[in-house]
Amino acid sequence: MTESCDVAIIGAGPIGLFSAFTCGMMGAKSIYIIDALPHIGGQCQALYPEKPIYDIPAYPFIEAKDLVQNLYQQAQVFKPIYALNQPITCLKPANSEWIIETTAAHYQAKAIILATGSGQICPNPLPLPEAKAYEGQGLLYSVSEKNALLNQNIIIVGGGDSALDWALLLCKQSKVALVHRRNQFRAHPNTLDKIYAAIALGDITLLEPYQLHRLIGPAPHLKMVELQSLKDGGLIQISADRVLAFFGLSSQSTHFSDFGIDQDKQGQIIVNPATCSTNLNGIFAIGDCATYSGKLKLIVSGFSEAASASHAIYPLLYPGKPRKIGYSTTQGIPNPSL
Amino acid sequence: MTESCDVAIIGAGPIGLFSAFTCGMMGAKSIYIIDALPHIGGQCQALYPEKPIYDIPAYPFIEAKDLVQNLYQQAQVFKPIYALNQPITCLKPANSEWIIETTAAHYQAKAIILATGSGQICPNPLPLPEAKAYEGQGLLYSVSEKNALLNQNIIIVGGGDSALDWALLLCKQSKVALVHRRNQFRAHPNTLDKIYAAIALGDITLLEPYQLHRLIGPAPHLKMVELQSLKDGGLIQISADRVLAFFGLSSQSTHFSDFGIDQDKQGQIIVNPATCSTNLNGIFAIGDCATYSGKLKLIVSGFSEAASASHAIYPLLYPGKPRKIGYSTTQGIPNPSL
Repeated sequence: MTESCDVAIIGAGPIGLFSAFTCGMMGAKSIYIIDALPHIGGQCQALYPEKPIYDIPAYPFIEAKDLVQNLYQQAQVFKPIYALNQPITCLKPANSEWIIETTAAHYQAKAIILATGSGQICPNPLPLPEAKAYEGQGLLYSVSEKNALLNQNIIIVGGGDSALDWALLLCKQSKVALVHRRNQFRAHPNTLDKIYAAIALGDITLLEPYQLHRLIGPAPHLKMVELQSLKDGGLIQISADRVLAFFGLSSQSTHFSDFGIDQDKQGQIIVNPATCSTNLNGIFAIGDCATYSGKLKLIVSGFSEAASASHAIYPLLYPGKPRKIGYSTTQGIPNPSL
Repeated sequence: MTESCDVAIIGAGPIGLFSAFTCGMMGAKSIYIIDALPHIGGQCQALYPEKPIYDIPAYPFIEAKDLVQNLYQQAQVFKPIYALNQPITCLKPANSEWIIETTAAHYQAKAIILATGSGQICPNPLPLPEAKAYEGQGLLYSVSEKNALLNQNIIIVGGGDSALDWALLLCKQSKVALVHRRNQFRAHPNTLDKIYAAIALGDITLLEPYQLHRLIGPAPHLKMVELQSLKDGGLIQISADRVLAFFGLSSQSTHFSDFGIDQDKQGQIIVNPATCSTNLNGIFAIGDCATYSGKLKLIVSGFSEAASASHAIYPLLYPGKPRKIGYSTTQGIPNPSL
């Protein structure tokens, strides 16, 4: 089944969220916000939810997660529909509209706004040649269902919050070894207290300074892992059903050129700065995924681009109807139910 | 004496205030903000301080005065110097810098940002041919010193908050007549209660429905005013030392073309959208006073233009020094004392 809408926004980061609001201000009645991640907020939420941002206008500072929450609230008046956890697989024309295919559904929209930031955020992979063969079974980069990891030998690799949080959670139901290159962790003090307590109690086995050297077993199933000491280079082997590797996240730019959209060599989408339109009629790009002469990769620039794209989308929603621009102070916000 | 600075911002409205912040972020050490009005906030503060604005990113709504206050706070980290109550009289080059002359002082700056919005905000004049001759003495559009109006016959014309607030204040020290075309006022309910009470007590004489018809006396000194009834057209004359006329405010665009800056027929300053630079090297224009292809007169667009102008100003402040762009989340804000 294909869901129809006025505007489909791809990317639920700050710029995508604000563009839902600006499209609503321009009279869009049905707005989908599609994201590959299972949550809104994009990079802000995934990478630095509690870091303060200082350059949002009229906020001397604001934590990234609060920025996301406020933008979500602001957009809510227009009731956008969130389609999360859905990486895009295809964009293609349909009459004068566009079809967006994701891993879960199809959408048809009069206009598309690409607000994919620096790209799809993915876990950094384990740097071993055999890693790929174990992915999804013996080797995991995230845990979607805790119960699939019951009563197993679990090797957790990493020294950040994700590694430690999962070690604490899983040690209650499985045998957990924590492998880290150093004896220092980068995590909340509160988490550190709990980790040291769990190690002292023998609930978690700490192996440091070690790094993962080899995965052993009939791929994708794991039997053992080989670890290398960073002190003397010595190798040890231990039983393992699963490796959970937490080496941080990084972003991969999407190949929109596969769908006929002009990108530069860095993978940035080339737009007309006056409208944020791409080379394809009805497809717009804003925020860090877009580029033009003078482009600054600042959130404030992306907000402005959201307004520009929304104004340019208006004639696609209301062909031939003159656009009245007014100030929100005198007009208020449009009633989305009209 | 001439004050020297890195950047002079002309206009203390929201966009001017935010540009002080963005210039600070780009390393400007000394920033002047010059405005013709006696207060910051420009039109937001002068015309609708308590109206909600709905289209500021991450604010589902915010009153104009709070927006101004938050932008002021955000800029404060870079300690801009405010030069208020100073209409600009001249802009002229000086070596590779600029001199700004105001009614009160001279400033020399490496770069100028014009953020004058829809122009200088002025009181609407009394629509009588002889009005000009009485201005500043018999006819006032604002009160700068209350004591100059002690024990006089004062005619206040208008039905809004300014008229009523001054009537209430001055009736304690002078004989006040309030002249209005209708028997309805547009003012805060709280003010209305006080006005009706003062009229009932005889502290204020209400003359309605009347309009001012003629100023009488050896200009600029006033002796009498002639009022015309809007009911029957009849004329009355009453003694008057001063007329205070409150007919609202409107904005006048500045003739920057007098200083060699390219403006379009509507008086908007033509800028390069990538940098917000005008035709004159070192002079930039942002916000509602600026225009380019695709320009939207939205606050959010002005915020983004502030960032663009500040980035373009960097090489004027630090010639030959490469610019490192970073995110405020990772770099924090520059220490202005360094």
